[in-house]
Amino acid sequence: MEKAPKTIKESASVTHDIVHPGDTNSYGIAFGGYLMGLLDKAACIAVRRHCTNRVATVAIDGVRFFNPAKVGYILDIKASINRVFNSSMEVGVKVTGTPLEKTESIDICKAYITFVALDKEGKPSPIAPVIPETDDEKRRFEEALVRRETRKHP
Amino acid sequence: MEKAPKTIKESASVTHDIVHPGDTNSYGIAFGGYLMGLLDKAACIAVRRHCTNRVATVAIDGVRFFNPAKVGYILDIKASINRVFNSSMEVGVKVTGTPLEKTESIDICKAYITFVALDKEGKPSPIAPVIPETDDEKRRFEEALVRRETRKHP
Amino acid sequence: MEKAPKTIKESASVTHDIVHPGDTNSYGIAFGGYLMGLLDKAACIAVRRHCTNRVATVAIDGVRFFNPAKVGYILDIKASINRVFNSSMEVGVKVTGTPLEKTESIDICKAYITFVALDKEGKPSPIAPVIPETDDEKRRFEEALVRRETRKHP
Amino acid sequence: MEKAPKTIKESASVTHDIVHPGDTNSYGIAFGGYLMGLLDKAACIAVRRHCTNRVATVAIDGVRFFNPAKVGYILDIKASINRVFNSSMEVGVKVTGTPLEKTESIDICKAYITFVALDKEGKPSPIAPVIPETDDEKRRFEEALVRRETRKHP
Amino acid sequence: MEKAPKTIKESASVTHDIVHPGDTNSYGIAFGGYLMGLLDKAACIAVRRHCTNRVATVAIDGVRFFNPAKVGYILDIKASINRVFNSSMEVGVKVTGTPLEKTESIDICKAYITFVALDKEGKPSPIAPVIPETDDEKRRFEEALVRRETRKHP
Amino acid sequence: MEKAPKTIKESASVTHDIVHPGDTNSYGIAFGGYLMGLLDKAACIAVRRHCTNRVATVAIDGVRFFNPAKVGYILDIKASINRVFNSSMEVGVKVTGTPLEKTESIDICKAYITFVALDKEGKPSPIAPVIPETDDEKRRFEEALVRRETRKHP
Repeated sequence: MEKAPKTIKESASVTHDIVHPGDTNSYGIAFGGYLMGLLDKAACIAVRRHCTNRVATVAIDGVRFFNPAKVGYILDIKASINRVFNSSMEVGVKVTGTPLEKTESIDICKAYITFVALDKEGKPSPIAPVIPETDDEKRRFEEALVRRETRKHP
Repeated sequence: MEKAPKTIKESASVTHDIVHPGDTNSYGIAFGGYLMGLLDKAACIAVRRHCTNRVATVAIDGVRFFNPAKVGYILDIKASINRVFNSSMEVGVKVTGTPLEKTESIDICKAYITFVALDKEGKPSPIAPVIPETDDEKRRFEEALVRRETRKHP
Repeated sequence: MEKAPKTIKESASVTHDIVHPGDTNSYGIAFGGYLMGLLDKAACIAVRRHCTNRVATVAIDGVRFFNPAKVGYILDIKASINRVFNSSMEVGVKVTGTPLEKTESIDICKAYITFVALDKEGKPSPIAPVIPETDDEKRRFEEALVRRETRKHP
Repeated sequence: MEKAPKTIKESASVTHDIVHPGDTNSYGIAFGGYLMGLLDKAACIAVRRHCTNRVATVAIDGVRFFNPAKVGYILDIKASINRVFNSSMEVGVKVTGTPLEKTESIDICKAYITFVALDKEGKPSPIAPVIPETDDEKRRFEEALVRRETRKHP
Repeated sequence: MEKAPKTIKESASVTHDIVHPGDTNSYGIAFGGYLMGLLDKAACIAVRRHCTNRVATVAIDGVRFFNPAKVGYILDIKASINRVFNSSMEVGVKVTGTPLEKTESIDICKAYITFVALDKEGKPSPIAPVIPETDDEKRRFEEALVRRETRKHP
Repeated sequence: MEKAPKTIKESASVTHDIVHPGDTNSYGIAFGGYLMGLLDKAACIAVRRHCTNRVATVAIDGVRFFNPAKVGYILDIKASINRVFNSSMEVGVKVTGTPLEKTESIDICKAYITFVALDKEGKPSPIAPVIPETDDEKRRFEEALVRRETRKHP
């Protein structure tokens, strides 16, 4: 059964966290595993706003760390679906951070996370397509295809 | 120095989380301490979007639990500043949850959290007022005053 | 079936914790969510010493934070049942803290937590009443009724 | 300077916890590391009720696991100082657990934890002696000496 | 000052973990953020066996998830330095898992993590080169260069 | 059914961790419960490389803490089976730590952990014996028997 397409805006989500001492590593800055956990949850939330399929993470690409996130930073984690490929989809996630007593945020990290949708037998199941509307969404839609080709021939 | 008022909308924030098994209690549902941690962080985020004052939590009132949050629920945590009283402010927080493979959310819990702003000597410091615009915001603005009187004479 | 009443003393409980760096927030003091988790567990322990009913937390009121709890503080968390109302009960919880290398404690926070007892079908089930004995217990028994009325007409 | 002796009762402490799913291991029962953390904290609390010395854990002996602690068990962790040896002391700790909807507890585990007191230069510093009063306290006081000899010649 | 090259074998490391319920996600399998934390720590350990430079994670590429890791799986996390590029280096990490009561492992995930070395002023600092010896090491050494070019022109 | 003996080398395992601020106690050094968790997991890993029996921890003896493990230390946790006694076995575990920007490790702690193997009815089940080969393995094999006698007559 074909699924009705949805706009990217409908599922785009922003989530937040505050870096606590228990989230830090040897250098007292946000631990990589903690940040990756935030990226993974944020991407999942966008996916679940887009569809009710059961999904599994299959790939993460292009993770870039720009600046360390220190204790007290408010993190804004933005996730949106870049493109759907039948039974898989690429989600773009970006984290920015605002230090304590400041109002301007700095870039922390970004990543592309790929999910597949699975039916009850564990077979790939079709996902409703996304409709890119803005120029940014259209650019990401095109770039997602290029990255997909790269993933296939690593 | 007087601070310029801001609308409530400017600082209202929505954050999200997904209930994992490690967040659950004896009955396998989201632990009260975990939910209160989400409420506390969400309220802090609204506060820090409103002002750069250093703040401390002084009171939590009217916490009501409506439905248990189970593993896999996506939680939406909405926080907005109800009213500023010179150097303190009341933030309203509400959590709703969406079960796995569902699209409709149910009410999980709500609370009113009161913060005071402190300067470097630990003395109360003035906070920019909020401007209620919608009918809902105006109602909450009025109710916050009533709750404040109740807090004073418990 | 009517349940035999018990004294408040029989179920009153004291539990303890030590604040570790992993329990702290942006300011390096005990995180609100961590403290609320301690309150919730301590109240549950008093409840389970009073009765074997399955219970659910329905409300938390009057949470007041008096002083920050810093790393190394020993926390004493005292919980006792203030009053039983058929199938619900109010538990009072208070936390005091003792800094490293000190012997005198300071007040950290307090709260009133309301539980309901549920049978296997999820319907309210009767709880054994408490018998207040001391003046303090009698005062809290009376105040719990006032707070209950307030909760009904918020 | 000589320190005034104290009774064992003065520092004996009981603390509590509830086993949550996040505290369990591969078999779904309380993880050894989690239980050892409870023992360590409980022993520290007794130590800090006895003296304000800065202490370090130097040895743990005789840890015995009697029964698995399952999700929902209320754990009672009892710690008391068995004996002081100038600048070190042995603390006995015992954990019992009560299953959900039950009133009778079963034995979970026990251990003997040895601490040394250190001054600001990190040198051993004298600790106030304990006075064993009951028969049980006197027996443990004697046994602690035997265990100490065993620790010296392992 | 030039640093003496080291073989890859000298720093290659294997670490292990066991999946506990507290490490799992909505579907009861190892959470992506938990696995990424293991990868990050394992890569750090290989880096610190190779050099004493202070390092920062700058990129993660080619993360692939092959099979879910379930509760009770023993995870083997293998990390080795693929190539050093003056002041940066690529570390390859692979995780395999062995179910409870089994002896054969299955593939869980893999990734390439790039670190930069920084001196006290935060400027890039030179890292000792690695010497690939085996055919596998030589292949990864060559592939790392290709991935580096891709990272530069994403 | 008799199980074929295995060498100790076959199951000996080394695992690693890095001390993060969230793993520390009141004094900012690795918490005892965290270290005991590492010891427990490392011993389990050696056990599961030796046999596929379901096991339970029954005793921990001779835990000695030599030096505090500080934030940033890489910990090496070495575990090997000292001796098998029909349906139980003693595992020796030792932790050393390497500070940030150093290459030499110091001793952190050690312990002897005893496991029993259980069949599906919870009755003791036979474990394949170990074959000590080196002088060190033979010494530990002999000492394990002495410790076993001590455990029986505590």
